[in-house]
Amino acid sequence: MMNSATVDRAQIEQLVRAAVRRSLDAVEPVLRSANPPGWVDGKPSLRVSISARHCHLTDEHVEILFGAGARLEPEKDLYQDGFYAAKQTVMVVGPRRRMLSSVRVLGPTRPFSQVELALTDSISLGIDAPVRHSGKIDGTPGCVLVGPAGTVQLDQGVIRAARHVHMNMSDAAYYGVAAGDSMELKIVSPDCSVIFDDVLVRADETSKLEVHIDTDEGNACNLDAASEVTLRKKQACGCQA
Amino acid sequence: MMNSATVDRAQIEQLVRAAVRRSLDAVEPVLRSANPPGWVDGKPSLRVSISARHCHLTDEHVEILFGAGARLEPEKDLYQDGFYAAKQTVMVVGPRRRMLSSVRVLGPTRPFSQVELALTDSISLGIDAPVRHSGKIDGTPGCVLVGPAGTVQLDQGVIRAARHVHMNMSDAAYYGVAAGDSMELKIVSPDCSVIFDDVLVRADETSKLEVHIDTDEGNACNLDAASEVTLRKKQACGCQA
Repeated sequence: MMNSATVDRAQIEQLVRAAVRRSLDAVEPVLRSANPPGWVDGKPSLRVSISARHCHLTDEHVEILFGAGARLEPEKDLYQDGFYAAKQTVMVVGPRRRMLSSVRVLGPTRPFSQVELALTDSISLGIDAPVRHSGKIDGTPGCVLVGPAGTVQLDQGVIRAARHVHMNMSDAAYYGVAAGDSMELKIVSPDCSVIFDDVLVRADETSKLEVHIDTDEGNACNLDAASEVTLRKKQACGCQA
Repeated sequence: MMNSATVDRAQIEQLVRAAVRRSLDAVEPVLRSANPPGWVDGKPSLRVSISARHCHLTDEHVEILFGAGARLEPEKDLYQDGFYAAKQTVMVVGPRRRMLSSVRVLGPTRPFSQVELALTDSISLGIDAPVRHSGKIDGTPGCVLVGPAGTVQLDQGVIRAARHVHMNMSDAAYYGVAAGDSMELKIVSPDCSVIFDDVLVRADETSKLEVHIDTDEGNACNLDAASEVTLRKKQACGCQA
């Protein structure tokens, strides 16, 4: 045993530094795992975003619509890293020549082109767009896309995107859900609160926690005025059955 | 005591008629109370209707918009007795000259004019319409109405109609609610089920049970595709809190 009176200043500092380092080494993996993409203060930070009507294009369709050699030009980054709203827009024309004059293109390009509309849009366009998850476009209706340099006839690809939530594996663990599960999103809003059921979980390593609903859904609950948003695992309680 | 063999045919008929009449007199009040307006098989028959954008007009505004002496002409009866969609439509013009070219007028006329829009409509028009119950238009934005014979400047009256349910007193008793209460409407629909909270009860003696939601709400849950609609008193259960 050392008597504290015999320990000099330098020795004390060395002992304290060593102790602190050992503590930090011990908690560092915990700290690291507590900060997955999008987490704030050791917890998921829920974002609910309204996806206005938009389309995804193949490289080939970008060149047909905007000219040989054309590439999508990012205008605004989306919340999910690597995704953006492009400067480019297209006109979407329905079967009875009704049209939406300016539909934003989202990037990057994809292996197939796809138009995502709210049901209100699809009714005004005269296209019976089914509720589908992105990419599940087999048997969906098509449309005509018109750009400044050319026109594309899509044989299929017009959908109403089903509501879903992007998340990473830490988010999934936090909520006790897995990819493919269904969750509920409760929106408390003055005189128009809503619980959205059927919020599909799309989980991967890198996504940030973000629910995507369309303009009909966002407007049904006046999301901008909401005082509270809660994402939760589907309730087992009988009252929801 | 009469021996049945001594009773003749006429007497039997008279006795049977009297017995049947007494039975009918006894059950008639029950039958009557079991068939309030809109009930089917002794139960409320729930109807959920989507109110597309529309307007209500005063007698004076009808004459300004459609000409001296003009009256609303019923085109289609609504589900509630005495109410109808008129043949007439008006153009609604917003503050930045954006407009909705054809907004249906509903009749009969009212003591004040009022325009009811979905939030999607109000955004496209550039009017910040608040969620209000019909008639509560103090402090709401105005707009310009344009008809074939003239124009009306409304100083207020543009609202997003809050979801509500019309019912009669028997419906209210059935659900255990009173006018002014809030109910929940659950819509089960493929991949887009929703529970609408804040469904205000409007009860009187004569209305038929009918929920009114707007096009944003109807499209958010794809009401046309719904397999199940349930109206219920707000759940006391903690899982909804």
